[in-house]
Amino acid sequence: MAAEPVWSVDPRTGKPREQVAVEATADEVDRAVRAAAATREALADRTVRAALLRTAADLLDEAGPHVIEAADAETALGPARLTGELARTTAQLRSFADVVDEGSFLDIRIDLPDPTTTPPRPDLRRWKIPLGVVAVYAASNFPLAFSVPGGDTASALAAGCPVVVKAHPDHPATSELAASLLRRAAAKVGLPEDVVVLVHGFDAGVELVRHPLVAAAGFTGSIRGGRALFDAAAVRPVPIPFHGELGSLNPVVITGAAAEERAGEIGAGLAASMTMGQGQFCTKPGFVLAPSGEAGDRFVSALTDAVSETEPGVMLDHRMRGSFLTGTFERAELPGVTAPVMPGPGGPHTVNAGFLTVDAGALVKGEHDTLLEECFGPVTVVARYDSQEQITAVLSRLPGNLTATLQMAEEDPDAAALLAELTPLAGRVLVNGWPTGVAVAGAQHHGGPYPATTSTSTSVGATSIERWLRPVTYQSTPQHLLPPELRDDNPLGLPRR
Amino acid sequence: MAAEPVWSVDPRTGKPREQVAVEATADEVDRAVRAAAATREALADRTVRAALLRTAADLLDEAGPHVIEAADAETALGPARLTGELARTTAQLRSFADVVDEGSFLDIRIDLPDPTTTPPRPDLRRWKIPLGVVAVYAASNFPLAFSVPGGDTASALAAGCPVVVKAHPDHPATSELAASLLRRAAAKVGLPEDVVVLVHGFDAGVELVRHPLVAAAGFTGSIRGGRALFDAAAVRPVPIPFHGELGSLNPVVITGAAAEERAGEIGAGLAASMTMGQGQFCTKPGFVLAPSGEAGDRFVSALTDAVSETEPGVMLDHRMRGSFLTGTFERAELPGVTAPVMPGPGGPHTVNAGFLTVDAGALVKGEHDTLLEECFGPVTVVARYDSQEQITAVLSRLPGNLTATLQMAEEDPDAAALLAELTPLAGRVLVNGWPTGVAVAGAQHHGGPYPATTSTSTSVGATSIERWLRPVTYQSTPQHLLPPELRDDNPLGLPRR
Repeated sequence: MAAEPVWSVDPRTGKPREQVAVEATADEVDRAVRAAAATREALADRTVRAALLRTAADLLDEAGPHVIEAADAETALGPARLTGELARTTAQLRSFADVVDEGSFLDIRIDLPDPTTTPPRPDLRRWKIPLGVVAVYAASNFPLAFSVPGGDTASALAAGCPVVVKAHPDHPATSELAASLLRRAAAKVGLPEDVVVLVHGFDAGVELVRHPLVAAAGFTGSIRGGRALFDAAAVRPVPIPFHGELGSLNPVVITGAAAEERAGEIGAGLAASMTMGQGQFCTKPGFVLAPSGEAGDRFVSALTDAVSETEPGVMLDHRMRGSFLTGTFERAELPGVTAPVMPGPGGPHTVNAGFLTVDAGALVKGEHDTLLEECFGPVTVVARYDSQEQITAVLSRLPGNLTATLQMAEEDPDAAALLAELTPLAGRVLVNGWPTGVAVAGAQHHGGPYPATTSTSTSVGATSIERWLRPVTYQSTPQHLLPPELRDDNPLGLPRR
Repeated sequence: MAAEPVWSVDPRTGKPREQVAVEATADEVDRAVRAAAATREALADRTVRAALLRTAADLLDEAGPHVIEAADAETALGPARLTGELARTTAQLRSFADVVDEGSFLDIRIDLPDPTTTPPRPDLRRWKIPLGVVAVYAASNFPLAFSVPGGDTASALAAGCPVVVKAHPDHPATSELAASLLRRAAAKVGLPEDVVVLVHGFDAGVELVRHPLVAAAGFTGSIRGGRALFDAAAVRPVPIPFHGELGSLNPVVITGAAAEERAGEIGAGLAASMTMGQGQFCTKPGFVLAPSGEAGDRFVSALTDAVSETEPGVMLDHRMRGSFLTGTFERAELPGVTAPVMPGPGGPHTVNAGFLTVDAGALVKGEHDTLLEECFGPVTVVARYDSQEQITAVLSRLPGNLTATLQMAEEDPDAAALLAELTPLAGRVLVNGWPTGVAVAGAQHHGGPYPATTSTSTSVGATSIERWLRPVTYQSTPQHLLPPELRDDNPLGLPRR
């Protein structure tokens, strides 16, 4: 069978730009995983891992203009957004270097012997070790920050796990470039280049999650693709952890008092958040509960104004554009649904942002459950509610989410109860903000009940390193045989309990 | 369809003692889960959770003689072992009360706003919240410590999760008694009794893991049963975490120098560990690499002496006894396998301990892989090796384990290399000890690569609470709407980062 070519495509024209690579065969995936696995021992040294992450950040920064040009040509996300994304990516790599240096991710716990307990307690020293080769599935919508040099790769390398990345077909050239920079960084710090290996192709991605030497996987993408890979990970003879971020509606509730106080501001803020990056963020607010009545009307009016003014935009690829057009059309056709600004085609390669409104009562009755499914692209659904009971009833029908947002007034009698209702729905709960823009921070949580994520983990922030580690306890082990991290004298000065 | 009766059976005679309950229908499982789910809000108060755990421990202690009698009648584990197990169980409940009070399990992390980062960082406050109803599958071999009042239940309640326990058919009366004590403890501290609900029956167990309101599961048992439930958890429309402890061979490596130094002591120690509780511990050393040659012969001789002196014992039920007899017979029949002490039937209801030996070379060639599978009961396999290469080759064929043990000499040139080879195989690595007897401690890890466990978590020790929690981050949330745990003034004095 001839190797399938991998083309870089310009979404602004739909035309192939250049052939970048070929899809990996099963044999090539096997070789990629074995090559990565062979670097495990070299990655055991924490100091060199931190150096790798910092050097990778430096090389990405140096190659910045080239990287941004490559990514823009394939994704049409634009230089401004991609400049920000690159800065986020390199900051993320450096922050994981700090996490490695600081060492609390090792979660070291030491119990000295105690013969009085039942059963008696011997000397126990616990820390965490890397799981092994991590398969990373790159995201369409973040060619850098959630792709080859992104958070999954950075956190896995920080944990000491070699990485095999399955490139996203929307940006194969950017992926090749980023992989070459990461591999060059490895060589520069004296590590084997194969600490990061890149493969292309749908079938290669499936082979990857099935490979016996792959110990865990990280994924950012659609529910359909993510669930198929999750299922493949679960049915392996030896199942592996699959940390997938699959999809999220990111509900927003606007209280009556908030609409009274700030209808215009909320409408404009929502428009900016839902159209940012052509609505192609996993945290795009895709569903909004707004009060019926005059204040709610003012909010809808402000939203109408702001969304109408949005320029047509290019989506990441023509398949997504097609899904967006079909999805918005189907939703707009539902009885009782109106489109104050109809989302749809702009030019032959662009789309126009828009939004739909519906009576919350229809959703309570279970009509139009399609409106409670994520639609990738610049569209949101505004459900108008009459009562707190209606809010509760609609929220109870929602799937899990990455985020849930409350728009409240300064003094708001409904805020506490609504916050309590939103918390079970999401991994991040915001007040008077917008969910797009996920800060890289120790207290960040980017995850949530299924389908937001397939596990209780986060894919952003310091704690995302926990996904790639497992605890090991040494019992009654002589000092000279213990890893230095666990010895009595704590020669590396690590935090321990 | 008539409800299937659940009988308590005396393993010393194989005869039914009394009908204890009936198997739960799908409707009854649904009611049980809904009743448990309704107690979630009541369990949100950490103070009352700690009181529940301590009161449950007190009631179990008070009812001690009655509990031990009930458990012994159904399991034949004997009053001495069960007295120890009860002490372990109540200590475990109290230690989780301490974990709840101490509060670091909430893993609170606070990031104050920083506009200079990319993207800008808002106020972020992260902690962990309970997942929801936890399904606990009780173990055959620990009617208390890994069953109704055991570690899974204790850690789930500590996390704030109501529990529905599926009783093990080997000890339904003990399960009923323990559940009634836990429910009484709930009532005593002002909680609804349904924070713990008990169900019986194989089909009920399958229904339970499929129930939409069940948010996670804990399991201790066989690979076959555990994998079936793991699979059921993974194929749900909304998959849930399944923390199963499925099986473990618990390899032991005896170095040449160790055999020279302590052949007799190691033989006697192994005999005691592998026959303890009729070899029905998940940490029973089931596979031993011992040197060929004279020192190794002395070890085998000491093992022969000690195992020969072991009294016949009653296994937990007649099905297990049958599996043990079949499994040991099949293994002993393999070409090249000898039985210095043949395991087999004692009286009509008992078994005799024994062990098998084989040349490690046969295992390297991939012959007799059955010998690398766990056989529940008082039997172990001793493989005699000629070289370090043979040890490495055999270890590379082993599945994942809860424990791996090194028996080494005071000065031992092989120890460091062997410890490095054993670490990837297990969750707990022991030196010159025996793996049976798992201390309840913060640094404990009772888990390991599949099939030892289906996740990277532990089912023993303080960190086992992490299985039942998920992080939530509050972004830019006003102080008065935050949980007290996350407010600036930290009114509860909790550990935070």
